[in-house]
This record gives sequence, C-alpha cells and structure tokens, in this order.
Amino acid sequence: MYEHLLNPKSVAIIGASKDERKIGNVVLKNLIYYGYKGKIYPINPKNEVIFNMRTYPSIKDIDDEIDLAVITLPAQLVPESVKECVEKNVKYVIAIAGGFSETGEKGKELEEKILESIKNSNTRIIGPNTVGVYLPKSKVSTALTLPDRTALPGEGYLAFISQSGALGLLTMDTISEYGIGISAFINLGNRIDLSETELLDFFKEDENTKSIVLYLETFKNGREFFNKAKQIVKSKPIVVLKSGRTDAGAKAASLHTGALATNDNIVEGMMKQAGIIRAYSETELIDYGRALGYQKPLYGDRIAIVTTAGGLGVITADYVSSENNGVGLKVARLSNKSKDDLKNVIVPFGSIENPVDLTADGSTDQYDKVIEILNRDENVDGLIVYALFQTAKVDSSLMDVLEKHMKGKPMVVGILGSKFGKQMLLEAEKRGIPAYPSMERTVKAMKVLYIRGKYLEGRDIK
Amino acid sequence: MYEHLLNPKSVAIIGASKDERKIGNVVLKNLIYYGYKGKIYPINPKNEVIFNMRTYPSIKDIDDEIDLAVITLPAQLVPESVKECVEKNVKYVIAIAGGFSETGEKGKELEEKILESIKNSNTRIIGPNTVGVYLPKSKVSTALTLPDRTALPGEGYLAFISQSGALGLLTMDTISEYGIGISAFINLGNRIDLSETELLDFFKEDENTKSIVLYLETFKNGREFFNKAKQIVKSKPIVVLKSGRTDAGAKAASLHTGALATNDNIVEGMMKQAGIIRAYSETELIDYGRALGYQKPLYGDRIAIVTTAGGLGVITADYVSSENNGVGLKVARLSNKSKDDLKNVIVPFGSIENPVDLTADGSTDQYDKVIEILNRDENVDGLIVYALFQTAKVDSSLMDVLEKHMKGKPMVVGILGSKFGKQMLLEAEKRGIPAYPSMERTVKAMKVLYIRGKYLEGRDIK
Repeated sequence: MYEHLLNPKSVAIIGASKDERKIGNVVLKNLIYYGYKGKIYPINPKNEVIFNMRTYPSIKDIDDEIDLAVITLPAQLVPESVKECVEKNVKYVIAIAGGFSETGEKGKELEEKILESIKNSNTRIIGPNTVGVYLPKSKVSTALTLPDRTALPGEGYLAFISQSGALGLLTMDTISEYGIGISAFINLGNRIDLSETELLDFFKEDENTKSIVLYLETFKNGREFFNKAKQIVKSKPIVVLKSGRTDAGAKAASLHTGALATNDNIVEGMMKQAGIIRAYSETELIDYGRALGYQKPLYGDRIAIVTTAGGLGVITADYVSSENNGVGLKVARLSNKSKDDLKNVIVPFGSIENPVDLTADGSTDQYDKVIEILNRDENVDGLIVYALFQTAKVDSSLMDVLEKHMKGKPMVVGILGSKFGKQMLLEAEKRGIPAYPSMERTVKAMKVLYIRGKYLEGRDIK
Repeated sequence: MYEHLLNPKSVAIIGASKDERKIGNVVLKNLIYYGYKGKIYPINPKNEVIFNMRTYPSIKDIDDEIDLAVITLPAQLVPESVKECVEKNVKYVIAIAGGFSETGEKGKELEEKILESIKNSNTRIIGPNTVGVYLPKSKVSTALTLPDRTALPGEGYLAFISQSGALGLLTMDTISEYGIGISAFINLGNRIDLSETELLDFFKEDENTKSIVLYLETFKNGREFFNKAKQIVKSKPIVVLKSGRTDAGAKAASLHTGALATNDNIVEGMMKQAGIIRAYSETELIDYGRALGYQKPLYGDRIAIVTTAGGLGVITADYVSSENNGVGLKVARLSNKSKDDLKNVIVPFGSIENPVDLTADGSTDQYDKVIEILNRDENVDGLIVYALFQTAKVDSSLMDVLEKHMKGKPMVVGILGSKFGKQMLLEAEKRGIPAYPSMERTVKAMKVLYIRGKYLEGRDIK
C-alpha cells in the first residue's frame, strides 16, 4: 500500500492552471521539470490545454487508477475536492493549502469535513497545510520551490519526515550541496490523517530507506509513536529532532503549529526507552541519520584516531573523551603488537600511540596499513579517520581504501577543507561512507553509533 | 617593528633551489605565484639563475635591508644560517625545517645554538618546525601548500595564530570556501623565540586586525600571555582554542609538540579572568572570531528572533534559552507597542510574538520594517535574523537591509541553504555581516557577543 505514496504510478493535479501565479501551475510544471515518468492527469474545470497536456474537468473523468492526487485549491474548496477523490478511490491525497485549523475555528470545521469524507474509505490525506512530498526516485515534487533558489537532493537512503515544510526544504537545500540524498521527504503539515507513526511503518518496508529522520514539534499520538518506534529501531535507526523542548520553544511551537507542549523530560525518557537517537539541530538530524544508516553500531567505547595532522588528533582526543564539551567515549590504548606494527609503517617522528599520526609524510598506502592494524587490535572498538588531502602523498585513491575498510570496525571519517576536500566529501557520500566536514561533527557521529550499540545490547544508555 | 613581519618590504629565501622537490623551490615559486610585490632575494650558494631570477651566494651579499628571511635548509644547517641573518641585521627569520627539540636532545642543542646567535641582536625567529606565515595583504605564503589541493583565504580582519601548521592550513582551506578572510596567519612551530604573547601586541597595533584567534596546545608562558591578553581584549577580542584539555588530549599534545599539560581548570579560570573567549573546535574558533570582530558586544540577554520559517523560530528559541543543549540566553518578550507595529507589517497568520515569523509571505521590505521595530523595542537586547532566500518575495537586496541594520543592536544572521544561500553567505562576509550556515552556529555566535559584553561590563561571566 505504501508504494502508492512513495512510488506513485499516476498523479492527478487538482486545480492545474495556466496562470503562473497559481500553485496548480507550479506543481504541474515541477512534475514535468523534475522528469516524473508516471502518468500525469491535470484536472481543470475549464478543460484547458496546459503545457500541451490534455486536462480533465473532474478527477472522476479519468479512466485510470489514481495513486496520488494533489489538491492545489484554496482551503474552502478542499473538502468537496476530497469527496470526489474518495469517490474515485484515490489512494493518497495531498492538500497543500493553508487556512485550516492553524487559523482558527472555521478552518477546523473544514478539516472535520475532510475527515468525514474519508471515513470508511481507502483514501488517505497528507496535510492539509503542507508542501507535500519530494520523492527523488519517482521524481515527484509538490513543493513550491524555485529551482534557482532551492536545490533538492538526489536519491539516497534517508527517509525525512517533517512537521514543518520550510524546515524540511531548507534542510534539503543545505544537504544537497554535499551530495547527500534521500529516499523520500514527507511534510506532515496539519496531519489530520496520515501521521508520523504510520510513516514509520511505510519506511520500515521501503527498501530504499536505511534510516528515518524526523522533525517534530509535537507528536500526533506520543504513545503510539514510541510503541511503533521501539519495534522499528531494531531494523532501522530513527533520529528525531523534537523542538519545543524549552518553555520559550514550546510557546513558539504553539504559535507555529498550534502545538500543545509535552514535558520534555517525558519526551527525553520515551526517546531513550524507544532507542530513538535525539538530534538538537537540523545538522545533527542529517549527520546522525547518515552515520546510523551507513555504518554498523559501535559495541564498545574505545576509539582509535588516525590523522596526518597532529593538531587534529589532539583536538579529537579531547572531544572523544570529554564529558562536558565532548561525547564521553574513550581514546583506545593500543596493544603493544599494534604499536610494533605501526612502527614499521609510520615515519619515526610520527605517532604510533593513539591518536595515530602519519604526519605530512603519510601516504594513501600508509592509511591502508594503519587502518588494517587498528582493525585487528582488540583494544579498539571503532575508528575515527581523518582523510586529509592537503599533503603530497595522499590522493583520491584514499577513498578506495576507506571504502574497503567499511567492512571493518565501525568507522567515521572527517574531511576538512574546501576545494579538493569538498570533492572528496561528495565522493564519500556516493560510496556510502559517513564523512563530515568538521571534527566536532565527526566525533558526534561516532557517538550515536555507540548509543545505538548500547541500546541494541539492551544495556543502559549513557 | 611588527610591520617588518606583517608587511615585509623584502624577503630572502635561503636555500632557493632549481630542484622542484626542495622546499626552497616551492617557497620561491609561491612568492611569485601569489604575486608578492616586495623585493625577492633568492639565496643560492651556486649562484644559479632560478625562475629567471638572479640569486645571491649569501644573504650578506645583498645590498638592501631584509625584513624577512625564510630558511628552507635542513635542521643542521639552520644555526649557521641564522648567524648570517643576524650579521645582516635581518628583522625576522622563519626556520621551516623540523628535526629540532621535537625529535630529542640533539635537536634541542640546535635550537640552543640558534638562540645563542640571536642574543643581543634585533633578529627574531619564527619557528623552527613551522609552515611559517601567510599574509594575504602582502601576498606572502611560506607554506608548502599545493594550490590545487589547498585554498588560502583572501584579505580579512581575523589574525590567526596557530601552534600547529597543519591545523592552521586545514582551517584556512575550509573557511576560504565561505569567503572568510584573514589579516595574517602565523604558525608558531617550536616557538623558541617569537611567542603568541608578543604576537598579541603586534595584532593589537595592526589596523587590519579586528579580532585575534589562536590555536594552542600549550602556552609558552601562561602568566605573561594572560596578563597581556587582559590588556588587549579591551580593544580587540581574543578567541583561543586550547586543546589538550583532557587527559587523553594532553597525552596526545605531548606526543605532538612535546607539550607539558596545564590543568585545564586553571586554564579555564585564567581565560575567563582575562576575558578570552574559549572555542572547542576549529569551527567555533573562526565563528567566534568573526562574530566578535564584526559585531559590537551584547549588553543584556534578551534576544529577538526573526524568521520566515516557523520551524527555525521554534528550534532557535530552544537553543537560545536552553541551559543544557543551548546557550542560556532569553527569548525576549516584545513590548505591546512592538506587537501592534508588527501587526501592521506581517500577514495575519504570521507571528507577532517572538520568534517573529513573517511566513513564506515575508518580503525584503517586511524584514526591514520588522528589524526596525525590534531595534526600537526596549525589551530587546540583540537580534538573530534568519535571512532565507527560498521564498519568492525575498531577494538579494535583503543584504542591503541587513547591512543597514548593522548600525542597530547587535545582530547575527543565519543563512541556510546551498545555491542561492551560499552566494548570500559570501555576500554577507564581504559586507562584514556575521552570518552562519546553521542555526546552532548562529545562536552560539550570539552567545559570545554576550560573554564579551558581560566581561566588558565587569560583571560575572555566565
């Protein structure tokens, strides 16, 4: 059933229009622009030809199954339109317009009418008051983005569910610069019907999804969500950025989505119990989702650090081990055997202690051998490797080395720099290697692998 | 005196070579490549012509004043070379080679010989074991960077002092992507002579420098440094990333630079007393330096937030007000007058409460009016403004609006996104507007303005 939403074979645009200022024009244009390969059915009561396409006066005039209908009409016309969708047995309906419960009592009545229409039907509603969905695999975007202003990411393994449309679009714009892809983006909007809880089930089944990240200001039904999440996290990691966690934030959330605050201590406790990883920013949300989706859990807290720049080793050792300004893991003490082996690989003025420092003399081949040695060391649980391309003996073939060692112990990679470094970050992403452009982000990504490992072991979470 | 180092009129390369694998070749080439406009004197004992330039057999053969000599010879030849520089009355000497005290007793003896030579002279040493300096205004770089691998930043207002060369170069590479410039970069190396303390004085005088950022694993003389810093911070902000703050980090630092650890609680206390802002990562180091260099201190903790995306307002309100995962400031309660005024500017479904939400309907003109209103509100001490370019009514002229309001209350700007957003981040940097590509970084930048304000008021630092 979820395929009809995540990979629709047919999309109807209700309110398709010639007028470029109308949402129905933009949504139709975007379907064409992004190259949607399924069947497109523009609905236009005047039966006009739009973008050289035949239109239909009503959805009921279409002689085909409709997986997804996008209602681009203003709020007051939505209930009637939904009713027709139900009669047509449309699987999913996205209602884009605002002007519903978020604006007051009258809007709330409109929502109740919609819910009345779909009762006992197979039709499900996304929204209203939503930018809808962005499905890179199917090439469907119902968001009103301007292509020269907002970039959308390519195909990837992250499922992204967001209560807020703008936060979702801004985050997708940001990550697209780093070649980070998504399996699907769904904006819940007022979520009168389809909720984050059911979507967890969808993405559990979706084989393109390796981890699920959510931005929520409230839970539609917290108890159901956490019960469901507890099941899902066993196979797929879940990361939640839950805002409104402070009094000031909760007040802001109530103004934004009419949300009622939940005591954040309760939320925090529920997340831990359900094995959900908590993010506090849009950056963490995606960083953690990628680490957990691309890499295995970390069972044990002893981290080895590999660098060609000594300063990075020192700062990272601080971040790894500090409880206050750091993640509270341990800098592994390498075995004597490892140190002997490292001595044969690294120049004498390098460091065979952890952090292992290859120095500016380090080469791609040395990286390979060093990672190999650390993967064999029983005192090491996970690796933080800085792939630094600023020195002469390291080149892009280091990415092959790192990809090979993805089979080894849990590893996260830090790549600092702009020109060549940025290219290599993109390359890492293509290969599913979790890589980050700063030390702090690299170390924090390691930490969430540890939290997940702890959870899966059924031990206390630190 | 400091001008001879920060803006040298003449540079001698001791060990200039035709051999492309030699440091003396790369340093000379880089001087030409970056377009150094002063006089270049290559020193080569065989008197060869290199890059079509006449060379001199010894520095003593040059009939000119030498501001800066770069010794590119191996460690054992450095003491003799320094002696000649002293005889020539060279102002500053950079000794690049490693192989000194960081490698053991023999290297330490070489350092002592150098110190003996410069005793009672006017010649000062930078290093040894250093990548030297990068001076974008003078277009001098002694670092052995490969231009296709490492980008160097343009001219700017940050003075960057680093004990570690690689950390410095990696950080400069990273920030150059965002158009962030520096006034000078100086790598201390083994700092047998010139120290971070004296450099504070140099940059206090340097009119191109607005704030000073340092990466240190140890202090050459902590007491002197903090005494000096306490004087300097009154006119120019200082940010320090001091690593080796944990046991694991201190051990790593001792392997890296032979550093002896200082108890971090003492360091922390001294920093607070001296009014130094502490950074914990390379990102914070530069972020904070820019905020403090570009923007006035914040006197008061009541922050107004402006956004066109409600979700950003909620997350930011959390970050601003949370003590645990946030910075512990306050979300300002706007005056009734402000709310009335905002009502006349913002659409009815926006928010006239703080965070002020213009919604996707927000325009450049609305930003202008809203910031104006908040600047007049006595309940507001500082502003966090998200400049979001994803919606139709906001365009690049928003940068003019923000630049105008740099005259108002302390303001930091968040710009999320990739394509257009990235361009606008670059534009903000050109105009000296402190702007950041994530919410967390934006909020933390605001916090350091507050810490500085508190310090300057002579009150306790939170």
